Amino acid sequence: MKYAKIKTKDNRVFEGYLVNETSEFIIIKLKNGYNIGIRNQDILELNKEEIESKYENIEYKKLESRNNKISILATGGTILSKIDYRTGGVHMLTKLEELISLVPDLLDYVEIKNIEIPFSIASEDMLPDNWIEIGKILVKLLNDDVNGVTILHGTDTMHYTSAALSFIIKNLNKPVSITGSQRSSDRPSSDAFFNLLSSAVYDNSDIAEIAVVMHGTSSDIFAYAHRGTKVRKMHTERRDAFQSINSLPLAKIFPYNKKIEIIDNNYRKRNNNSPYLDDKICKKVALIKTYPGSDPDIIKYYVDKNYKGIVIEGTGFGHVPTNTIDKKYSWIENIKYGIERGTIFVMTSQTIFGRTNPFVYSNARLLYNLGVIYAEDMHPETAYVKLMYVLGHTENYDEVKKMFLTNIAGEIGEKSFYEFFNKE
Amino acid sequence: MKYAKIKTKDNRVFEGYLVNETSEFIIIKLKNGYNIGIRNQDILELNKEEIESKYENIEYKKLESRNNKISILATGGTILSKIDYRTGGVHMLTKLEELISLVPDLLDYVEIKNIEIPFSIASEDMLPDNWIEIGKILVKLLNDDVNGVTILHGTDTMHYTSAALSFIIKNLNKPVSITGSQRSSDRPSSDAFFNLLSSAVYDNSDIAEIAVVMHGTSSDIFAYAHRGTKVRKMHTERRDAFQSINSLPLAKIFPYNKKIEIIDNNYRKRNNNSPYLDDKICKKVALIKTYPGSDPDIIKYYVDKNYKGIVIEGTGFGHVPTNTIDKKYSWIENIKYGIERGTIFVMTSQTIFGRTNPFVYSNARLLYNLGVIYAEDMHPETAYVKLMYVLGHTENYDEVKKMFLTNIAGEIGEKSFYEFFNKE
Repeated sequence: MKYAKIKTKDNRVFEGYLVNETSEFIIIKLKNGYNIGIRNQDILELNKEEIESKYENIEYKKLESRNNKISILATGGTILSKIDYRTGGVHMLTKLEELISLVPDLLDYVEIKNIEIPFSIASEDMLPDNWIEIGKILVKLLNDDVNGVTILHGTDTMHYTSAALSFIIKNLNKPVSITGSQRSSDRPSSDAFFNLLSSAVYDNSDIAEIAVVMHGTSSDIFAYAHRGTKVRKMHTERRDAFQSINSLPLAKIFPYNKKIEIIDNNYRKRNNNSPYLDDKICKKVALIKTYPGSDPDIIKYYVDKNYKGIVIEGTGFGHVPTNTIDKKYSWIENIKYGIERGTIFVMTSQTIFGRTNPFVYSNARLLYNLGVIYAEDMHPETAYVKLMYVLGHTENYDEVKKMFLTNIAGEIGEKSFYEFFNKE
Repeated sequence: MKYAKIKTKDNRVFEGYLVNETSEFIIIKLKNGYNIGIRNQDILELNKEEIESKYENIEYKKLESRNNKISILATGGTILSKIDYRTGGVHMLTKLEELISLVPDLLDYVEIKNIEIPFSIASEDMLPDNWIEIGKILVKLLNDDVNGVTILHGTDTMHYTSAALSFIIKNLNKPVSITGSQRSSDRPSSDAFFNLLSSAVYDNSDIAEIAVVMHGTSSDIFAYAHRGTKVRKMHTERRDAFQSINSLPLAKIFPYNKKIEIIDNNYRKRNNNSPYLDDKICKKVALIKTYPGSDPDIIKYYVDKNYKGIVIEGTGFGHVPTNTIDKKYSWIENIKYGIERGTIFVMTSQTIFGRTNPFVYSNARLLYNLGVIYAEDMHPETAYVKLMYVLGHTENYDEVKKMFLTNIAGEIGEKSFYEFFNKE
């Protein structure tokens, strides 16, 4: 591992681990955890020395035992990737050690007992079968002698996976954090280190819930632990892209102080249960959005393909076009068509925030009376994952409705909750 | 019109216009603009008197001329509806006068020159043909001697209509506000009056843009005027459900002071152009969302139905599943299938906030190289409406791409814009 001391032409001095060197600039990791990029043309003096790193080629299991033991389950994503500065493309890190070596604080704080990397994919490629595969390994890691488990995951579909694990892992006994990064770990502005450290703090907490742990603001002050069923990626690029939906985050984490502040006291506590996997999910479920001019025959398309469930992202409180003027745009007849064939319909709202309600307007009451299940305050992605889970267990309408509207993992919130965003 | 004075059993006194009386309670409109509902059982004394109202049976055109003239174009929605307190259902107001009579301040401030009610529908039933119909009447009203026009509209799809009007009305010369309410106008907590008055203030401003004018917070302090192409309903029930997406609002409006504060100085100014309608839109456009396990054959479904354009709500920066393990989940082949047949593909993000970017990850670069058009920072609904507009003018790929990526009505924002929500 290389250590660099740099003096710039305007007399500033920087030193830290050498992260990357290109023909244009050099990136070093400062003591405060930030990476900084300096243009070669601005450098007056550069001294590099080879130093022995306690973080390189770590034999995890041989570290002397500490109190804070965690395991890592890595599945891919930006946090495991690295920019190729020649092509601009992003590549996977060959070794997780490369990443960990860049977070010195991490190994001062926790012992990493196990690392499992079942696959390494971009999260847009994550499939329901991957959720099950992750779940299997997670159960194994949770039954081991660790305080918690950190899952590394791409951010694009992290909230789908966090919802899925919340439903399929039963008897959860310890904290499970899912984290990732919005910028690859060798970029000056990478959020990888901050998030990884925050996850380790969460893993050593008292909260036995599946949580997405990511930056709480755009600066390095605190991270949020968002409940796995109530979180969504709400920005393409910001570090604080993840937001709790219709709920407050579980906790606020200050990674540099190793401090966690509980926000929602109503959480599942660390316990001595034995977690296990309930992997029965139905993959014949679709998620469809309505909009002005949308084609209701799309319902028929899925029903005729033998789909068991359809989650609709309606408008407002949960409405669909009911046009009486131009029947070809009316969704009602097609929903009837599906219901007559046993398809389960769940209604959510494309507003993302807020609770659905079939009782305010007659157009929605009509759907409700037909048998459409209104998803309370579940946002569309969580409703989609939950319907897959429920239909994996029963296809009987009454049982589906009952199970779907029963709180399994904090996905159905208090009726009084009315906050918009995390404005803290 | 009735005026009521109420004394309650706990000695409080209320007076105001009588809005509604039921077997359970009475609603009156207080001087401060709020409605209040009082249970009959709590009432000690109730005095009602018939008063002559300057707001009843108004003959709009006979009012003495004031400087502040506006016209109203009413299309339906909650703002034009009234609760039936016997059934709990919501009905349409028979006369717009009923509504206006509840906003005394309005007629002290503006003269309403014309009222047009082409139809009265819930906005989930709004179709692209309705946008055109509204556009035709709007042009007529704008060419008349008024300062601006207020459009009353259901909130569910208000942002689709505001985007559509932004594209199809050319040479816009005056302010056009679109407003509505989240609660019907006879409810104690109705936002109808506040929004209507805010719209009137906007209509008399210097901003010649199509704007959604709705509550800025959950209390009656100010409204925002959101640019028609950069706004979205983001909550099922809150009064401040509308949020500017990837942009700041145009202005903040304090209706009780008749004051408007410009936020974005880069707006189109009131001018002497002659507005006209460009009604060429293509209705064969679909909006599809990807998610883990989503069926890519949905692309074929639309392509084979001869759809000209497909807007994809991808994940993150604009990604779709590219699975190499299980080809049946890969979207790439199907997108190729569509492109080979001349279908235009536009990529947006289901994060709603943030800018798409095909250059960060190779999966997206692949799509970009195939010819998928990345929608910059347009959110999915605006991209959908814009693609309809563009395909109404040309189906040539190069021309579509050029027109789609050219700013028409403020829909493409600055690259540096990075705000999440309106946190003011």
